[in-house]
Amino acid sequence: MNSVHSIEAMALEARRASEQIAPCGSEQKNRALLAAADKIGQNRLALQEANEQDLRSARAQGLPSAFLDRLTLSDKVITQMCRSLEEVAALPDPVGEVVRMWRRPNGLWVGKMRIPLGVIGMIYEARPNVTVEAAALCVKSGNAVLLRGGSEALHSNRALVELLEASLREAGLPPKAVQLVDTPDRAAVLEMLRQEAYIDLIIPRGGEGLIRFVAENSRIPVIKHYKGVCHVFVDEGADPEMAVRICLNAKTQRPGVCNALETLLVHRAEADSLLPRIVSALRDQGVEIRGCPETLARVPDAKPAAEEDWGAEYLDLILAVKIVSGLDEAIEHIRRYGSLHTEAIVTRDYARAQRFLREVNSSTVLVNASTRFSDGYEFGLGAEIGISTTKIHAFGPMGLEELTTTKYIVYGSGQIRQ
Amino acid sequence: MNSVHSIEAMALEARRASEQIAPCGSEQKNRALLAAADKIGQNRLALQEANEQDLRSARAQGLPSAFLDRLTLSDKVITQMCRSLEEVAALPDPVGEVVRMWRRPNGLWVGKMRIPLGVIGMIYEARPNVTVEAAALCVKSGNAVLLRGGSEALHSNRALVELLEASLREAGLPPKAVQLVDTPDRAAVLEMLRQEAYIDLIIPRGGEGLIRFVAENSRIPVIKHYKGVCHVFVDEGADPEMAVRICLNAKTQRPGVCNALETLLVHRAEADSLLPRIVSALRDQGVEIRGCPETLARVPDAKPAAEEDWGAEYLDLILAVKIVSGLDEAIEHIRRYGSLHTEAIVTRDYARAQRFLREVNSSTVLVNASTRFSDGYEFGLGAEIGISTTKIHAFGPMGLEELTTTKYIVYGSGQIRQ
Repeated sequence: MNSVHSIEAMALEARRASEQIAPCGSEQKNRALLAAADKIGQNRLALQEANEQDLRSARAQGLPSAFLDRLTLSDKVITQMCRSLEEVAALPDPVGEVVRMWRRPNGLWVGKMRIPLGVIGMIYEARPNVTVEAAALCVKSGNAVLLRGGSEALHSNRALVELLEASLREAGLPPKAVQLVDTPDRAAVLEMLRQEAYIDLIIPRGGEGLIRFVAENSRIPVIKHYKGVCHVFVDEGADPEMAVRICLNAKTQRPGVCNALETLLVHRAEADSLLPRIVSALRDQGVEIRGCPETLARVPDAKPAAEEDWGAEYLDLILAVKIVSGLDEAIEHIRRYGSLHTEAIVTRDYARAQRFLREVNSSTVLVNASTRFSDGYEFGLGAEIGISTTKIHAFGPMGLEELTTTKYIVYGSGQIRQ
Repeated sequence: MNSVHSIEAMALEARRASEQIAPCGSEQKNRALLAAADKIGQNRLALQEANEQDLRSARAQGLPSAFLDRLTLSDKVITQMCRSLEEVAALPDPVGEVVRMWRRPNGLWVGKMRIPLGVIGMIYEARPNVTVEAAALCVKSGNAVLLRGGSEALHSNRALVELLEASLREAGLPPKAVQLVDTPDRAAVLEMLRQEAYIDLIIPRGGEGLIRFVAENSRIPVIKHYKGVCHVFVDEGADPEMAVRICLNAKTQRPGVCNALETLLVHRAEADSLLPRIVSALRDQGVEIRGCPETLARVPDAKPAAEEDWGAEYLDLILAVKIVSGLDEAIEHIRRYGSLHTEAIVTRDYARAQRFLREVNSSTVLVNASTRFSDGYEFGLGAEIGISTTKIHAFGPMGLEELTTTKYIVYGSGQIRQ
């Protein structure tokens, strides 16, 4: 276990490793990822033994079953980890891409080349699969990573990071490119957040409390993602089948995730016909409705929505419903209560579809599709290190590209400035 | 003058204005910029009267002449301001650009659309031209801006912002998109740095002390640019004429700026012939040389460089000189002492040119060109709001594009997630 004092030393080692891994080619990085997939597959039983230690103490502490689920390295989860590593190996390498190059009147060629960010600090809950996925994405994008997973996953994470380090070594890459901060208390997190000389970016993943703690205490830039209060606006004249299908999918396909629907906005013209159909389909799936007064008039046994229901992230089978006068009120409502995560419109109207896309400045805006698509895999990024709901550096699902920046490169032939 | 308490109110008004200006088209924004150019040209005398008030107190305080220079609204400076406004109006509008769009197997079209960041907080020294340039760039990119210029320029800035607000109003844009924070003490800056609910990005421009103060006290992301310790590496076999020309230009064309040369690295093979030629040309321009022991052996009357000379930003006619064994040592030296700003190699060797470009991860890396080109105008960005030497969000000279982010837009036809 590292002491608080050694975290600075680890961060310095991560910085050194990041300098070594940055210029390495894709083949070498992919070799390390595929070796890790092999090793994890071959050490399934040893990993599950380490995991069992974590599970035993978690059960003894009486942690809830959803928590134990996320902590468990089942056969299925281990197979999925190996597949993730292979998938990330198969993705194109963003490093070295020249995203643009242009010629200046004086003959200089100026371009922008993608380079790794350097050292990433990941702070997350007790989910050992995140350990592997985050390491894979950071290595592929030429970064080093300090992993600080929830202390309840300590033994699992140690066993995984040992295999990851061995894979890096085997491929001739610096093993310190992937390190585990395994001090269990929050002092270790605070110490990480002070290493602005060595860590370039902090990505916290977990509940709002964890993210606020990190954001308030960090001297290093933080990618923030507090919550997902996602809206669907059902427009006047929307295709009824499509509206029902999208609302049902957005709310119930996986209610506990950040891109699930939390507030439904319905155009007043659809309040008498379409709204009851949507509500009835949702109730068949066990969804509780909390409505505005106009909604209550149409859905008499619904609960009234209080002010705090607008803006609530239920992560559960509960839905706030509001009848609005049209697109303007819908946009205004989203602006006031939304979390800049994901919003969708269901419409047949060309102009309103375009206005919604342009004027709603959430990180993902969809026309006629479920909010559940707001996800790195679904967008085709191949993987996701997190989602940003603030606009600096990245906005929305973040893949490999968002773990890089660009530097200016200039090819000259002796030019000087006049 | 605004009280500290009113800064939150100003920030909220800026947020509202940013929501209004974000969807506005280029024509309307350009109309405001051209109106501002007209008004500034027409109110030259009134501006110079206001400026004279600032100059009188600055002189009374005994501020140095370089300071007075930067504060002065001469005819030339005013003409240049008007030209900047016209140039920014002529630049392409980044907002609304769809930088990429791709199709998913389920038929969804997913794209990334550029949108404004929201509200920018500019904190800078007593340079009234920055007031106009920053406002022009923020308005063009659809952002609102809170301007906090050095208090010694108070009257000048008030007069300018009044004209800018009138121009916005004339073009039908929200006048609160450009506001001046005119409380003279640092408490106002601290209050700005706490408005994380309303301000999206802080851009400080000025000396290292100001930037450190801002970075340490801000809860809002800050674009940092501490200093420019720029290097030129003269490789074995470099074209001697080119090496002399580039070193001379990089060091002496404008020594007081961040992209001027501060440390010269020379390949040992060129220490006896080329180094003395470069040094002699520099000395003819009054440059003082501080050398490593090997340099001193060739340039006997040079001062010895102390450890703190490596990494020094002289901003003056002083140059640190070190003889190195080759490219590896040069890269290692830059990594250890550089500031991630700008580095150049002078070489005729293809492989070493490519290695330098790839392995030096400063924000600008040049082959056979002066470091003085590291600048938004010179790169063809049309303008520059600042330079970032940290990798998050932007790296290197920042133009209009760096005042935007991208959101994901999705065109569906009823898709739901399986």
